[in-house]
Amino acid sequence: MVNKATRKRMDIELRREELLALGLKLFARYTYDELSIASIAEKAGISKGLLYHYFPAKRDFYVETVRAAAGQLVGLITGDPRETPLVRLRQGLGAYLNFVEENSAAYLSLVNGGIGIDPEVSRIVESARGRVVKLIVDALGLRDPAPLHLMALHGWVHFAEGASQAWLRDKSVARDELQRLIARQLIFVVSTQAAFAGLRRALLVKITSMLEVPA
Amino acid sequence: MVNKATRKRMDIELRREELLALGLKLFARYTYDELSIASIAEKAGISKGLLYHYFPAKRDFYVETVRAAAGQLVGLITGDPRETPLVRLRQGLGAYLNFVEENSAAYLSLVNGGIGIDPEVSRIVESARGRVVKLIVDALGLRDPAPLHLMALHGWVHFAEGASQAWLRDKSVARDELQRLIARQLIFVVSTQAAFAGLRRALLVKITSMLEVPA
Repeated sequence: MVNKATRKRMDIELRREELLALGLKLFARYTYDELSIASIAEKAGISKGLLYHYFPAKRDFYVETVRAAAGQLVGLITGDPRETPLVRLRQGLGAYLNFVEENSAAYLSLVNGGIGIDPEVSRIVESARGRVVKLIVDALGLRDPAPLHLMALHGWVHFAEGASQAWLRDKSVARDELQRLIARQLIFVVSTQAAFAGLRRALLVKITSMLEVPA
Repeated sequence: MVNKATRKRMDIELRREELLALGLKLFARYTYDELSIASIAEKAGISKGLLYHYFPAKRDFYVETVRAAAGQLVGLITGDPRETPLVRLRQGLGAYLNFVEENSAAYLSLVNGGIGIDPEVSRIVESARGRVVKLIVDALGLRDPAPLHLMALHGWVHFAEGASQAWLRDKSVARDELQRLIARQLIFVVSTQAAFAGLRRALLVKITSMLEVPA
């Protein structure tokens, strides 16, 4: 049995999630300055007072929207923990491109987010990238990655973002080709002698055959 | 002889440039919401009224700051037109890393700029990336680059940004190693069969020997 207090807490949590989903749509369509708490409340169909109850200021609403979206995207990329790391890597890339395709405006908003340098938004986006790098490190079985390895993998995460953004602007390239481009770049990053000298050759061959075929 | 009207125009232009240089420092240190027109004017040592004369609103000041910084960075990367394209490519990469090193906070602010999705700021940053892609296309002598080539090069520009950002957070890697990493990635992008099948092998060898040695 769910008691009244629990149900109320669930309602609040649900409403908060709905507001954050709306936030992702709004910040993808309007600039930060164009949106006021009043207009956000109006679009959500609630009072300004209730919106303030959830988010003390517009900036909080923005920051929490970015946090929720980043969490959702990383969750999708993380995939099914029962699968092997390499299968998850391939599925994760597919899930990433699904998100990019289905939420293009919100995606562009997310990876370009953070005016001036809003330290909190930067930290959220950077932490999401860091979690993706961690997923790859785990998938490759790297025990103690050197700073140069991590730098190369961070670069690759940005490469995937940049190539995806270019693809959203010009979809004349097939999605499979985009996926192969991103996968090949990762293979190169982990196969260059300088960066990943310790990696076993057999693993590389396995990664290559795994990633070149879109999930 | 410079007449009075010309001098006045030069003074205005100079003052505007000084304000934009200040803006780059301020937006690198404070969030957009933390800065008000009043506080910007105070830090610039001028009246609010005079600041409004140059920039009608805070957002204009921000947008123009980003535009000036992007223009400055692309100018540095573009380099000396009297040099050969490949020399310019190498020098451009060095100039880029100089800018990153000397203006780290401002650089992070620039590449992460644009709250929600501020279309104007996104357009400025994107146009700067596009101009860098154009420089590479010219340096490689690609006559009619296919969408996949451009996508790969856009990805590479982001790779350079991502690797540089990771480097700013952990400088235990030597700058030369970072430069080599970024250069190698470009060599791979342009040498993969799928993306640049038409490129002459001799040119590739030339690019490789050119880029692997930091300028």
